[in-house]
Amino acid sequence: MGDTTSQLYGITIGDSSGVGPEILLKAWAGGEIHFPCIAYGDLEALAFYNDALGYSVEMHAIASPSEYRPGRSLNVLDHLMMSRSDVTPGELSARSGAAARAYVVSATKAALAGEIAAMVTLPMNKEATQLTDPIFCGHTELIGELCGVQDVTIMLASDQLIVTHVSTHMSLQNAIHAAKKPRICTILEMTWQAVRRIIPDARIAVAGLNPHAGENGLFGDEEIREIIPAIEWAREQGMAIEGPFPPDTLFYMAVRKKKFDAIVCMYHDQGHIPLKLLDFEAGVNVALGLPIIRTSVDHGTAFDIAGKGLASTVSLIRALEFAVKLRAL
Amino acid sequence: MGDTTSQLYGITIGDSSGVGPEILLKAWAGGEIHFPCIAYGDLEALAFYNDALGYSVEMHAIASPSEYRPGRSLNVLDHLMMSRSDVTPGELSARSGAAARAYVVSATKAALAGEIAAMVTLPMNKEATQLTDPIFCGHTELIGELCGVQDVTIMLASDQLIVTHVSTHMSLQNAIHAAKKPRICTILEMTWQAVRRIIPDARIAVAGLNPHAGENGLFGDEEIREIIPAIEWAREQGMAIEGPFPPDTLFYMAVRKKKFDAIVCMYHDQGHIPLKLLDFEAGVNVALGLPIIRTSVDHGTAFDIAGKGLASTVSLIRALEFAVKLRAL
Repeated sequence: MGDTTSQLYGITIGDSSGVGPEILLKAWAGGEIHFPCIAYGDLEALAFYNDALGYSVEMHAIASPSEYRPGRSLNVLDHLMMSRSDVTPGELSARSGAAARAYVVSATKAALAGEIAAMVTLPMNKEATQLTDPIFCGHTELIGELCGVQDVTIMLASDQLIVTHVSTHMSLQNAIHAAKKPRICTILEMTWQAVRRIIPDARIAVAGLNPHAGENGLFGDEEIREIIPAIEWAREQGMAIEGPFPPDTLFYMAVRKKKFDAIVCMYHDQGHIPLKLLDFEAGVNVALGLPIIRTSVDHGTAFDIAGKGLASTVSLIRALEFAVKLRAL
Repeated sequence: MGDTTSQLYGITIGDSSGVGPEILLKAWAGGEIHFPCIAYGDLEALAFYNDALGYSVEMHAIASPSEYRPGRSLNVLDHLMMSRSDVTPGELSARSGAAARAYVVSATKAALAGEIAAMVTLPMNKEATQLTDPIFCGHTELIGELCGVQDVTIMLASDQLIVTHVSTHMSLQNAIHAAKKPRICTILEMTWQAVRRIIPDARIAVAGLNPHAGENGLFGDEEIREIIPAIEWAREQGMAIEGPFPPDTLFYMAVRKKKFDAIVCMYHDQGHIPLKLLDFEAGVNVALGLPIIRTSVDHGTAFDIAGKGLASTVSLIRALEFAVKLRAL
């Protein structure tokens, strides 16, 4: 991370049926974006929301980051995949799903080439993208594949707590199967590397998978078979990581008692439930394991409020600021 | 519930290696207990902590609730199973595990007989009790068995939120298997009955099992196969219950946006992580499905601080007050 000379940040506008485009326009119109940015998207899709919501954002199309022009006009790397009439707020669209995928592919390649310093992503809709790419299995997974890496995970960061996950977007049943020693070792190492860059003396804890962390095998043996051996391995490598702890007390100990700065979670909701409860809008997703910097908003396409100008810009601004922070490290 | 004429509350002292006995003594010495109570335990075990911690609580033994005497002296229904030298703070003990079980058996029988109005339980240690009762599978399960009922569950109540659970003390793998329509229907009905007694116009929501509540089957189909049919059944019965909702946003919606008063959770940590994060010490456990009133503290034996006088009395007082409240309904 941080080895690019570019000063530009690429923001993908996400699925045009969702709140991504309007959030970017709202933030730009409101003067909330203080870093040089390029929107990876479609000029016509942005124009649709710009007109519908009366944001009056000045925009111009560019064909590559080298054409970037500083100033009050938003630079849009135009993919020419959507016309205004293709935009259907709140409705699943194969076209906007495919376009959202294309924006991510372009921005990832630009980041890998050093043309942009980092990428910040607005939400895709998995179902929409699967209409044209049935094997699409996730935003982060797609970026990982483009970067040629397999082990990628999401770090969720708020002011009060950082969490990482052994697995995220899969069924709880598959998450149990995924919590195996090699994968846990990988996530422990990724967490250690990433969190220590942000908080040099970070205290990192690992949650158990089962209630009471299995209570010595009474409620499941994944702690004994997989998690404890992974933590032992990590400690042998010199990582000061503790656990596994009973999940229900661990979040309390970390947040209220300030005992830990980061928690490695065994599945999506173990980390997402407490983090969203603490800080719903301001969480930032950071992809770990990539050779590029990629942060993301901590919300979905929110079809129910798309096109209404209601979506908050807080998470986008936080994601952008976090990308800037990571670049500076 | 509430059909007893007794005014007495039975408090089981729990495992004598843990913090139960000292919490009761501390609360009594501090004048925090304002209701007529009988301690179900061993006089010698209580005397050990009374002396060790200098609480100077006056106590006397009784052999049955009918011998209760009001006043400043703590009534102890003495089981004569522990001598002072048997008390080993912080150490697993077969004797104190067996004694803790006996206190619960006595108090449950007294509650069933109407000799006490309700029982409030201090923590047992499952491993200790299993040393003499290998098939012991839980405090609540034992009480359910003594009451001759099979479908029992735990409601966790704090000032901010009430949660119930489809399953509690079992591995996450078994919790997935347990989340079947008939069981979910039972828990929905128990929750509806119990919560509406406490909050007459309560709004009740159901959490999904999988991330994003399965996202229409993309991340698991338990919502489609089991949870949605159970909610549909409940609504047909006239219960105004909504869901399933994505777990990570549901707790935020309930607590921060005040959209729901109670959440039906699919597994232990789904409800325990957010509730303990919000209100660690003041949570109360209420058993649902029993013919008697039983509340319990929301913490374990805490062997690490046993005998040090550090354990908080807050949860005991809340559990007692909640039992009084339930009796009055």
